[in-house]
Amino acid sequence: MDVTVAIDCMGGDHGAHVTVPAALAYLDRDPRTSFILTGRQDVIERELQRASAAAGKRIRVRHATEIVSMGEPPALALRGKKDSSMRVAIDLVKSGEAHACVSAGNTGALMAISRFVLKTLPGIDRPAITSILPTLKGHTYVLDLGANVDCTAEHLLQFGVMASELVASVEHKERPTVGLLNVGEEDIKGNEVVKQAADLLRASGLNFSGNVEGDDIYMGTTDIVVCDGFVGNVALKASEGLAQMLSTYLREEFSRNFLTRLCGLITLPVIGAFKRRVDPRRYNGATLLGLRGIVIKSHGSADAFAFGFAIDRAVEEARTGVLVHIAERMSSIQKSAA
Amino acid sequence: MDVTVAIDCMGGDHGAHVTVPAALAYLDRDPRTSFILTGRQDVIERELQRASAAAGKRIRVRHATEIVSMGEPPALALRGKKDSSMRVAIDLVKSGEAHACVSAGNTGALMAISRFVLKTLPGIDRPAITSILPTLKGHTYVLDLGANVDCTAEHLLQFGVMASELVASVEHKERPTVGLLNVGEEDIKGNEVVKQAADLLRASGLNFSGNVEGDDIYMGTTDIVVCDGFVGNVALKASEGLAQMLSTYLREEFSRNFLTRLCGLITLPVIGAFKRRVDPRRYNGATLLGLRGIVIKSHGSADAFAFGFAIDRAVEEARTGVLVHIAERMSSIQKSAA
Repeated sequence: MDVTVAIDCMGGDHGAHVTVPAALAYLDRDPRTSFILTGRQDVIERELQRASAAAGKRIRVRHATEIVSMGEPPALALRGKKDSSMRVAIDLVKSGEAHACVSAGNTGALMAISRFVLKTLPGIDRPAITSILPTLKGHTYVLDLGANVDCTAEHLLQFGVMASELVASVEHKERPTVGLLNVGEEDIKGNEVVKQAADLLRASGLNFSGNVEGDDIYMGTTDIVVCDGFVGNVALKASEGLAQMLSTYLREEFSRNFLTRLCGLITLPVIGAFKRRVDPRRYNGATLLGLRGIVIKSHGSADAFAFGFAIDRAVEEARTGVLVHIAERMSSIQKSAA
Repeated sequence: MDVTVAIDCMGGDHGAHVTVPAALAYLDRDPRTSFILTGRQDVIERELQRASAAAGKRIRVRHATEIVSMGEPPALALRGKKDSSMRVAIDLVKSGEAHACVSAGNTGALMAISRFVLKTLPGIDRPAITSILPTLKGHTYVLDLGANVDCTAEHLLQFGVMASELVASVEHKERPTVGLLNVGEEDIKGNEVVKQAADLLRASGLNFSGNVEGDDIYMGTTDIVVCDGFVGNVALKASEGLAQMLSTYLREEFSRNFLTRLCGLITLPVIGAFKRRVDPRRYNGATLLGLRGIVIKSHGSADAFAFGFAIDRAVEEARTGVLVHIAERMSSIQKSAA
């Protein structure tokens, strides 16, 4: 299937300097993709020129006068900036000109504008942010990672349904396993919301594996881990902090003296292979799941290599028709509950 | 100050095989400590003999017929096992025979029995579990790590007060900084409980630094990180899982072939120094904070080396009079609020 992706070129810490080269590189990687770059025309064209490229059939530019800044309150961005590069990219999904959009901009604003423009899928109260994380067995999908800080049991059920359809579509796993993040494996553990969510998930027809704990994320115990956005966000950021601390410590040990530096040189290929394996750039691209349209959030600090993985995610999801599957599944669950 | 510590010798995955040698090793390390070992007399004496030691003035045995198993429901352990090694150790703290107790047993049972026997300090609704975690700058105290899965703003305030007094006493930092774990630094972020807790902490007279995020734990942004037990438990276990995954990956890369194994041999001292620095055994020993007595929880899988650090914690806290300081601070906060 030919896929057109709208790219918010002005979002993120590096803006067009990263997004334009990433889109250009993707053209070569997948000949059945095309892009609509949204943002300030002069800035985008300068980046195209810098790469000795030009707009054409597969890479078009849609001028947008405004930019949502990284610290801007979402409500302000939604109401006040109707011609932002972010808004224009989402509008392209709404109108059907693009199959998906990708932005490295302000997460809160991206969620607020996406909800307002695209609306949620039938049966879904709130979209969730989901991303893949590396595990001992491959990778797992965790949601919500921060969009909803006060989830009800029904929300957690909806997250489970959405992620199951997403993983079934994108990973071709027929009945992916769903774990519910808790403070213990026993049914009696956790707060009331989590206990109720476990009951709903058990009755949902999903492949529910019961409670999982924080370490199960990285053990790869289940294909999907469902949690409240507050908990998911803290777990994700704590992991980022720990990885950064360990990497700093490792670097420090290798730079203590001449001998340890020599060790570092000798070990470079091994440590390099290790680093490539856990490179967070390969996991870049979180899905705003539950909208009537595909919206992918790239990390704000992503470089062109990382941004390419976010585009990958957009293209994959567009090709699988995941949104239709979610809507169908929600409708069948609601019928059986009625 | 001479300190007597009661050791629940039967708790944990390894029982007396770990706890008895750890206590014996501690006798040499600190001549002003003595121990009361609780549990089955025959088992403890066998372990003493194995180490060519015997009970004496500094190491006494208190027979207890029952053992709380690791998976036992806390309420059952509390009601049904009044002569467990765990209960007897806590009773020794209550009676004043011991200044503190250490157990590697069932966390839920330890908390339930401690609350029942010792009661909470005045002004404290619920005890919290706190532990030190390594950071880029040293270490930080995080609480609650799983005792309370539905905290109110007042509970979070109490956690902040207790930890501030603990850190002031044990680390000799006069006004330790307190961060509130949230999904963003801005005041508008988070759920209602966290927003209210921020208001209470701001008005408390503590050295409150505002909101911190998951990565701030390992960045060492504040001396103390306050959070709900559900969130803290997930963050801690996710960190454990990630560390385990990274360690497995590193080992795999070094054992790919002859050359990488050679690299591993050459790098052994450097990787060894790194591993010693982040060795979780050095951080073993969580405080059940808020009780009218000092109760330290060791990791269930702790070896004698790790268990020694939990004893360290018990001895340090006993010497600082931290419980009196917490009670005084709570009383002054309640007076100023009245």
